[in-house]
Amino acid sequence: MLTIKDKTELQRFIKKLRKRSTSEPEIETNVKKILSEVKKRGDKALIKYTKLFDKHTLPLKIEPDEIKEKTKEVSKEIIDALRFAAERIRRFHERQLEKSWQYEEEDITLGQLIRPIERVGAYVPGGKASYPSTVLMNIIPAQVAGVREIAVSVPTPHGELNSTVCAALHLLGIKEVYRVGGAQAVAAMAYGTETIKKVDKIVGPGNIYVATAKKLVFGEVDIDMIAGPSEILIIADSSANPAFVAADMLSQAEHDEMACSILVTTSEKVALEVKKEIARQIKSLPKSEIAKKSLKNFGAIIVVKSLNEACDVANEIAPEHLEVMTEKPDNLLPLLKNAGAIFLGQWTPEPIGDYVAGPNHTLPTSGTARFFSPLGVYDFLKRSSLIKVGKEGFNRLASYVDVLATLEGLQAHANTVKIRKTT
Amino acid sequence: MLTIKDKTELQRFIKKLRKRSTSEPEIETNVKKILSEVKKRGDKALIKYTKLFDKHTLPLKIEPDEIKEKTKEVSKEIIDALRFAAERIRRFHERQLEKSWQYEEEDITLGQLIRPIERVGAYVPGGKASYPSTVLMNIIPAQVAGVREIAVSVPTPHGELNSTVCAALHLLGIKEVYRVGGAQAVAAMAYGTETIKKVDKIVGPGNIYVATAKKLVFGEVDIDMIAGPSEILIIADSSANPAFVAADMLSQAEHDEMACSILVTTSEKVALEVKKEIARQIKSLPKSEIAKKSLKNFGAIIVVKSLNEACDVANEIAPEHLEVMTEKPDNLLPLLKNAGAIFLGQWTPEPIGDYVAGPNHTLPTSGTARFFSPLGVYDFLKRSSLIKVGKEGFNRLASYVDVLATLEGLQAHANTVKIRKTT
Repeated sequence: MLTIKDKTELQRFIKKLRKRSTSEPEIETNVKKILSEVKKRGDKALIKYTKLFDKHTLPLKIEPDEIKEKTKEVSKEIIDALRFAAERIRRFHERQLEKSWQYEEEDITLGQLIRPIERVGAYVPGGKASYPSTVLMNIIPAQVAGVREIAVSVPTPHGELNSTVCAALHLLGIKEVYRVGGAQAVAAMAYGTETIKKVDKIVGPGNIYVATAKKLVFGEVDIDMIAGPSEILIIADSSANPAFVAADMLSQAEHDEMACSILVTTSEKVALEVKKEIARQIKSLPKSEIAKKSLKNFGAIIVVKSLNEACDVANEIAPEHLEVMTEKPDNLLPLLKNAGAIFLGQWTPEPIGDYVAGPNHTLPTSGTARFFSPLGVYDFLKRSSLIKVGKEGFNRLASYVDVLATLEGLQAHANTVKIRKTT
Repeated sequence: MLTIKDKTELQRFIKKLRKRSTSEPEIETNVKKILSEVKKRGDKALIKYTKLFDKHTLPLKIEPDEIKEKTKEVSKEIIDALRFAAERIRRFHERQLEKSWQYEEEDITLGQLIRPIERVGAYVPGGKASYPSTVLMNIIPAQVAGVREIAVSVPTPHGELNSTVCAALHLLGIKEVYRVGGAQAVAAMAYGTETIKKVDKIVGPGNIYVATAKKLVFGEVDIDMIAGPSEILIIADSSANPAFVAADMLSQAEHDEMACSILVTTSEKVALEVKKEIARQIKSLPKSEIAKKSLKNFGAIIVVKSLNEACDVANEIAPEHLEVMTEKPDNLLPLLKNAGAIFLGQWTPEPIGDYVAGPNHTLPTSGTARFFSPLGVYDFLKRSSLIKVGKEGFNRLASYVDVLATLEGLQAHANTVKIRKTT
């Protein structure tokens, strides 16, 4: 793990971080091939790729009964935890709901209609990493928005359904589920096939093939965001508990070798003790090998002179997760501009946000918190402007339209008001 | 112009419409080359391409004094119209401003911080099509959002600054303007050069090179949307004034040969009369050749049996602009799901929305109103989740985090709560 004490080093490190999310041209070529084949051949291509990658030839659609049946394998403790999480997630997201509005001026009505997207496709990763929490985080905001049709696509390697993913789907009442994964699932949702009806928007995380496919179909449909490897940045002063800091850094590092854990601290002592704690805690982790590689590649302890400077570093990195473990964490809040989610104080480890706090765990990565937001209800709403002008209102506006349209050389635009004026 | 009376024909027409926005692989190759050269060589590449495409070697930066000076060439009538439009646009967009919020549960604070994006680049087309209205529509929402740095890029063919674009920039108090256009301008804003500082988001319309470049840099920065050719769809019953309908269709058709004007009507009589009116009005248009080609390629009159059916057609096409010229236009509003902007009644010709009504004229095209929204203040805001949990709150949540993290095989995640519990 790198210890960084000067700005040149810091810039070099940030540059390295940003590169993590670059996709390889070779992957793009493969994904393009899959997309175009699914677009042309529909279900036939889905069946072919599912056989090739997931090694099964089961029907593409998973029947609600199968999901219900599979849910029975899940313990009550887990069902309770999923239900507890779902309720909290729903409650938070309900606050994000926006309503249509309009206002009147003399003889002019202006407004904004805010309505749910009609049909959404949610991708749920399967195989090695089956995450029921992803099901909750991606689908609940769509439900709160009022999306009428939610289709889920989940790969089932060797045909094996994940029982806890089923439990989450069952809990949310999702009936339309397909056992398709990878770029082919994204293609099916974007273009439609005989079995899978085209959607308007695709959400959900996935591997580099899924991410690349989503980027390529953007425009044909909307997508949530282009998710890269996970990150945490922790701002800590001398009051921070090094064991907590170390545990939280390791929780990101275990995700994958490209994940990134950064400590920014004003305390040399904390820096040293966190290092020791990481070395101690990492030993007992089942995923210690992944965590070690992640920390070696993208782990860093940045020692700064002041908490102000720490905030500057955080804003520049614009991390997905930002923990503040300082004596007065609230004081830093006005200074923190770019972060997917901010966790204040020592009793708010980031995994609380991953599962049960309520806010979404789908967050902008790789510095995109400069301009992207957490997944939310707003991602499942679309707006239409509303303009209604009466004859009086028209007369107040018309001459300005005439001037501006004429100025821009758009005579037919000007004519639309001229022809009405003469009536 | 096509007259469509059956569903097969309609489906064929919609397919043709959707294809308008497909970009050619050849353009993508050229744009990629420009992007990568600007990324590597910075200003040098900008200067090279500006010389090549815009035929000048003037400094990249346009000084505020040049803009102020150029504004003096603009008549008072035009300045007044721009000011009138700007005020109305600002007033409407102020309604879109959202505020940060948070709420408390026992010992848990949850919230959403809503803050402006730091630095935005606005592309303003130049040359043949210089639109001061575009300056107003793209920049005012960013200003309302509170964006601190707004950089504008505008091509100046042969070095010639457009005076009305300058007037609009001056009116809005914009000081940072570059005379760079095309894919090279997008590249400069996305990657940064010696002269142009990297932005967080790029907005604004442009030709196919600009649109392709924006699509390619998406992810590195955010973009507003991928704009295609303009569209209007008019729903009319027998009460509609055929001369108004024709004028409004022509106002789209004059934009370019790929623009699309569609009438959906329950009245065969209106259909016939609109055709006659178009033939009559088109003769006197300066852009009659463009309008003719547009109507020939993508113009259509769709005759339907009921207004319900008309709404279904509108929802499927999801037009950028949707006019309703029926006896009771408000009655259709609940049925209209997909449209960039809706114009109700015969006194609301679409150009009123282009210039002075208040809502944005940057709208989703090519059917993307299914999932995209008009450009708005929300496009210049980003959200961060806020989570703050105290010790009591932590104790209520911890065991569920433990269960779910363990279930997902993320032991280091579970450890973050375990280690705190033992404290």
